[in-house]
Amino acid sequence: MNEISEIRRIGVLTSGGDCAGLNAAIRAVVYRASFGYGWDVVGIENGTLGLLSRPIAARPLGPSDFDGRLIRESGTFLGSTNKGNPFAFEMPDGSVRDRSGDVAAAVAELGLDAVVGIGGDGILALLKRHADQGGFPLVCIPKTIDNDVGVTEVSIGYDTAVHVATEALDRLQPTAASHGRVMILEVMGRDAGHIALVSGIAGGADVILIPEIGYDIDVVAAKLSEAQDKDRKHALMVVAEGCPAPDGNGKYGGVGHAVAEALSGKLESEIRVTVLGHVQRGGVPTARDRLMAAAFGTRAVDLLAEGQRDRMVAWRDRQVIDVPIADAIANYRGDDVDGAVVATARGLGISLGDA
Amino acid sequence: MNEISEIRRIGVLTSGGDCAGLNAAIRAVVYRASFGYGWDVVGIENGTLGLLSRPIAARPLGPSDFDGRLIRESGTFLGSTNKGNPFAFEMPDGSVRDRSGDVAAAVAELGLDAVVGIGGDGILALLKRHADQGGFPLVCIPKTIDNDVGVTEVSIGYDTAVHVATEALDRLQPTAASHGRVMILEVMGRDAGHIALVSGIAGGADVILIPEIGYDIDVVAAKLSEAQDKDRKHALMVVAEGCPAPDGNGKYGGVGHAVAEALSGKLESEIRVTVLGHVQRGGVPTARDRLMAAAFGTRAVDLLAEGQRDRMVAWRDRQVIDVPIADAIANYRGDDVDGAVVATARGLGISLGDA
Amino acid sequence: MNEISEIRRIGVLTSGGDCAGLNAAIRAVVYRASFGYGWDVVGIENGTLGLLSRPIAARPLGPSDFDGRLIRESGTFLGSTNKGNPFAFEMPDGSVRDRSGDVAAAVAELGLDAVVGIGGDGILALLKRHADQGGFPLVCIPKTIDNDVGVTEVSIGYDTAVHVATEALDRLQPTAASHGRVMILEVMGRDAGHIALVSGIAGGADVILIPEIGYDIDVVAAKLSEAQDKDRKHALMVVAEGCPAPDGNGKYGGVGHAVAEALSGKLESEIRVTVLGHVQRGGVPTARDRLMAAAFGTRAVDLLAEGQRDRMVAWRDRQVIDVPIADAIANYRGDDVDGAVVATARGLGISLGDA
Amino acid sequence: MNEISEIRRIGVLTSGGDCAGLNAAIRAVVYRASFGYGWDVVGIENGTLGLLSRPIAARPLGPSDFDGRLIRESGTFLGSTNKGNPFAFEMPDGSVRDRSGDVAAAVAELGLDAVVGIGGDGILALLKRHADQGGFPLVCIPKTIDNDVGVTEVSIGYDTAVHVATEALDRLQPTAASHGRVMILEVMGRDAGHIALVSGIAGGADVILIPEIGYDIDVVAAKLSEAQDKDRKHALMVVAEGCPAPDGNGKYGGVGHAVAEALSGKLESEIRVTVLGHVQRGGVPTARDRLMAAAFGTRAVDLLAEGQRDRMVAWRDRQVIDVPIADAIANYRGDDVDGAVVATARGLGISLGDA
Repeated sequence: MNEISEIRRIGVLTSGGDCAGLNAAIRAVVYRASFGYGWDVVGIENGTLGLLSRPIAARPLGPSDFDGRLIRESGTFLGSTNKGNPFAFEMPDGSVRDRSGDVAAAVAELGLDAVVGIGGDGILALLKRHADQGGFPLVCIPKTIDNDVGVTEVSIGYDTAVHVATEALDRLQPTAASHGRVMILEVMGRDAGHIALVSGIAGGADVILIPEIGYDIDVVAAKLSEAQDKDRKHALMVVAEGCPAPDGNGKYGGVGHAVAEALSGKLESEIRVTVLGHVQRGGVPTARDRLMAAAFGTRAVDLLAEGQRDRMVAWRDRQVIDVPIADAIANYRGDDVDGAVVATARGLGISLGDA
Repeated sequence: MNEISEIRRIGVLTSGGDCAGLNAAIRAVVYRASFGYGWDVVGIENGTLGLLSRPIAARPLGPSDFDGRLIRESGTFLGSTNKGNPFAFEMPDGSVRDRSGDVAAAVAELGLDAVVGIGGDGILALLKRHADQGGFPLVCIPKTIDNDVGVTEVSIGYDTAVHVATEALDRLQPTAASHGRVMILEVMGRDAGHIALVSGIAGGADVILIPEIGYDIDVVAAKLSEAQDKDRKHALMVVAEGCPAPDGNGKYGGVGHAVAEALSGKLESEIRVTVLGHVQRGGVPTARDRLMAAAFGTRAVDLLAEGQRDRMVAWRDRQVIDVPIADAIANYRGDDVDGAVVATARGLGISLGDA
Repeated sequence: MNEISEIRRIGVLTSGGDCAGLNAAIRAVVYRASFGYGWDVVGIENGTLGLLSRPIAARPLGPSDFDGRLIRESGTFLGSTNKGNPFAFEMPDGSVRDRSGDVAAAVAELGLDAVVGIGGDGILALLKRHADQGGFPLVCIPKTIDNDVGVTEVSIGYDTAVHVATEALDRLQPTAASHGRVMILEVMGRDAGHIALVSGIAGGADVILIPEIGYDIDVVAAKLSEAQDKDRKHALMVVAEGCPAPDGNGKYGGVGHAVAEALSGKLESEIRVTVLGHVQRGGVPTARDRLMAAAFGTRAVDLLAEGQRDRMVAWRDRQVIDVPIADAIANYRGDDVDGAVVATARGLGISLGDA
Repeated sequence: MNEISEIRRIGVLTSGGDCAGLNAAIRAVVYRASFGYGWDVVGIENGTLGLLSRPIAARPLGPSDFDGRLIRESGTFLGSTNKGNPFAFEMPDGSVRDRSGDVAAAVAELGLDAVVGIGGDGILALLKRHADQGGFPLVCIPKTIDNDVGVTEVSIGYDTAVHVATEALDRLQPTAASHGRVMILEVMGRDAGHIALVSGIAGGADVILIPEIGYDIDVVAAKLSEAQDKDRKHALMVVAEGCPAPDGNGKYGGVGHAVAEALSGKLESEIRVTVLGHVQRGGVPTARDRLMAAAFGTRAVDLLAEGQRDRMVAWRDRQVIDVPIADAIANYRGDDVDGAVVATARGLGISLGDA
């Protein structure tokens, strides 16, 4: 229904966990749509939840909504959510209903000729279902601190998360050294260990545990002892939150502390654990995250103007490319255990916990 | 035994929990002693533990030991410890022995005419006992991230800890706002809430809990709800680690999580907890911490040169003063509940949890 | 005319060079006036210039005007100016007119029962004249990156400026060391050298030049050579912009480059100059600047409520005090050449350029 | 002469302008050579100058030379130089001599079986000539804040320089806004405008001038006026140092100030210029720069172990590749005027100064 010439008005929304660079991405969408094509832009609040609200939670956005500050603020001023799948929406009374029709209706009611969706891989799949159902053009922008969206070298939010995690290691090292302690830093990363791996390399960790590689707690203990026996008495370790506890059970809920407890009987030195948490999402966006946001946001609008739909923008070899959303969803990416980053860690003598 | 003219060689040690600015303080002591008086300086490792080691863990220090980097590194390159009271020293076999005589003997063996001790209030008391027993001149420099040493406006390490805690709030605010959550930040502060109070004011907290003021969890819940009902859906809260859990039991061990649990039944929104931990100790020293370190370190050496002993340097109204160590020990300082900072928090409408 | 009970509505303005912490101060004024006393607050734009505009450039301010971000943003969202003295106002046609009556009229027209003015020492004097003329209660808050307002230990904006200058030295040191160069950093400070002195101490400078102390370029050259002859090949130097050029002529306009030129014939190594400029004003406000802003802002409102007028708030020994504005104006403060900070610099062996 | 099995001892040197990440790269070379292959490593000081010194300025390096801090320090502890081409070496008496033979002799004298050279494109060419002449295997690692080495997506030092430049814009924006000024930031970039372009996009610039695109000062003035006429009174501009002055003459030596002067007659608002200078080289290395350093350093050693020579490591699409040094030299890279980053700038409505 929507050819180039027909687009007059687009919506933009952020969905899933917030991260650094979202405001810059929204700004890029609005600037490009407004300056480049003269389109109206509507900001939809709280992801698809805003489309389920009555009245619809949305507002017109123009370049003047962006003062000079917003570009360097993390989070999303439109709000986001990782709750409330409209295809299986939990009602106040506990019943579950398919409210996806309400989403399509809201898009129509808002008079949107197309939608730019900013989200991680779960969100992309969901948005595509909505677009298919509602028959509206959709272009997506990948964001996730975990950097686990395939086909793109990098997603919005990842670089800042790595920066914050690395800075934490930079701060833990001197206190570890002053007291001859083992410091364990638990970082985000549910299924992919990118944050742990890169921050660990950058911050000088002795051991890095990632979900993609199983670990042996005795190997870990041996490496930490060895590090402390050499020229220094302290050691640093990074653990992705998605790693299983040493007893093999469960996930989430404190693998850092669980590892520390398992190590406490095997090491002589004191062990301290820091669970970094949500500060990883809220750091001042790095220049790289802001560049990605700007490149993705402007290009997403261009794609709509070119009549494309169901595409996701991606970064590869210094260019913005675009791929079918379906391809992006199909290509989940954890750490490549045969890739350059894992090889770098091993090359530096960092233990990944495997034998 | 030690008149001015007799000092030829002094020792310097850091003891207690590490913090930002210790290296700058050691450097100031060495520079002043060397450039100003031509004295030799011996760095004692790991606090008084270094004096109990055999051989004694100590090494000569001169200006050339300080490259341009060390001044901006937190922690202490001499090492520190908060274990091992020599007056009641736990031996490997579990028995407890008074090894204070070994400390005095080591000071004599090293040929030290005086000692500069850098530590918090517990350490100051301990060092004074050693100096009294060993008959050596002692001058102390206050350091503690908790800023609970009385008589000085500020101790080394405090400003950096506040900086790191404030930055954490700056990072939690956007992610809290994006998802309409309550964010709780647990910061250090066992008996004094200075870090919590100042970082909370600086970071825009709605509620701040400090050990000096008892709180009512229902008051806290009401304030958070009120904050979220106004123009925004999120709220920020800072808790000092030394606050009791809501059930009134115990201390340490996660008051942040305990408060969150107690609130979870009283608030509708999601709550997230961040326990900041040791990154508060290891931040890049702020300019103010480095200034304090430099002012205290140079002045401590001057005091020894003037024939003073048993003095602690302190900062008051832009000047370095000095007071008897005994006075410093006697004047523990928590947050002044009638003082300017508490008044500022209340003036901003921040709840301190009391009715 | 204004007793406590009569105050219903106050104005707030920022004037003079902008700095970090102004937004936090405005917020504190608004929060305290609104939450504490139920007063209306009017934000006056661009300092006194806003009162000369027709229509008057001012707007109502309430707590909801402050999202969670503004507290950590430097500058002033009300705008500021260091142009346009209303007592000698330069008209578009070049003529000069006394427009102070317009200021008083505007205050009356806005229905303001009192004004909170945030400014440096020149501004304080000006505002006091307006208040005297217009008969309205005035309370002032000191702000200046130069920290040259007497009677207060610290003014808003100073701590952040020192932070930025110190960070610059932290960045210049490694590149100086890599190439064995002399690095000269020119920082702000027209008549007072506080920024230069403290950042120089904190950043490990070998030479610091401040307006309060005359320097001899040969002494400077000798010190830099000596520093480079020892254990390292590089040297660091900080110069306040207000120092005279080595030929004794003039001020402003590049003393850093002038010093470098004068040194180039006296030193063998390469010299590089960095003029730090306006980044000193715009750094993210430090926790200390935000605390000062909050303490000053809330207390200024309290003073008005107490029926005080013509007072300036100040910080001394961990308390907010208040003094007559006239005293603050009369007590300009440069670096105390006999004070603790200068003594610290000399104690570290830093040359201040004097023989 | 050097097959895999023959390598026992390698040299490593840094040459050209220093930047962030060099220490991390040296560390990676030493760790990989030592832990992975058991080789000895010799650190050559001050680039090729160290090989011309008598005695040769070099020292053995092992893992214990790297404390936990060095990885996060910018610059190079080995020293660097951008003076002294050994093929045309300026002697103290002013004569010029080919001392390349001395380089080869020094490599032989040090017993080096191979050399890892870390440098920018000029250095790579020079080192290759030395390797060809001396017959020793050479592998190179690209570093340059300008990011102008072709074939690699990114060189060491670039990301940190962009970070520092972006942060400067973040600091200039609030002060520009407070006073309604035009702020011009001059950043490094002699022939390539990457730093200017990316920091300008990330920092919200209205105009960005890069050497690759000619500009018209009237176009610039018009854009700045337009930006100030809209919703704000301030504007931001970034200029690469390598842009010609508005009068078309010369290069280097203050294009920022020259542009400001040319604009001063065309704009009503005040203009302020900041020349960022060497702080761009000395920022704390970003995680990305440290990752590049680690990946390049470890892989360079692997290449030598594999019997490769005359290769440069490069980063492409998340992998470390390697290319002939000659290809890297031949593929200088400025901003791709048809590439994604330039398109992004234009897409945001940023003026690049062309009509």
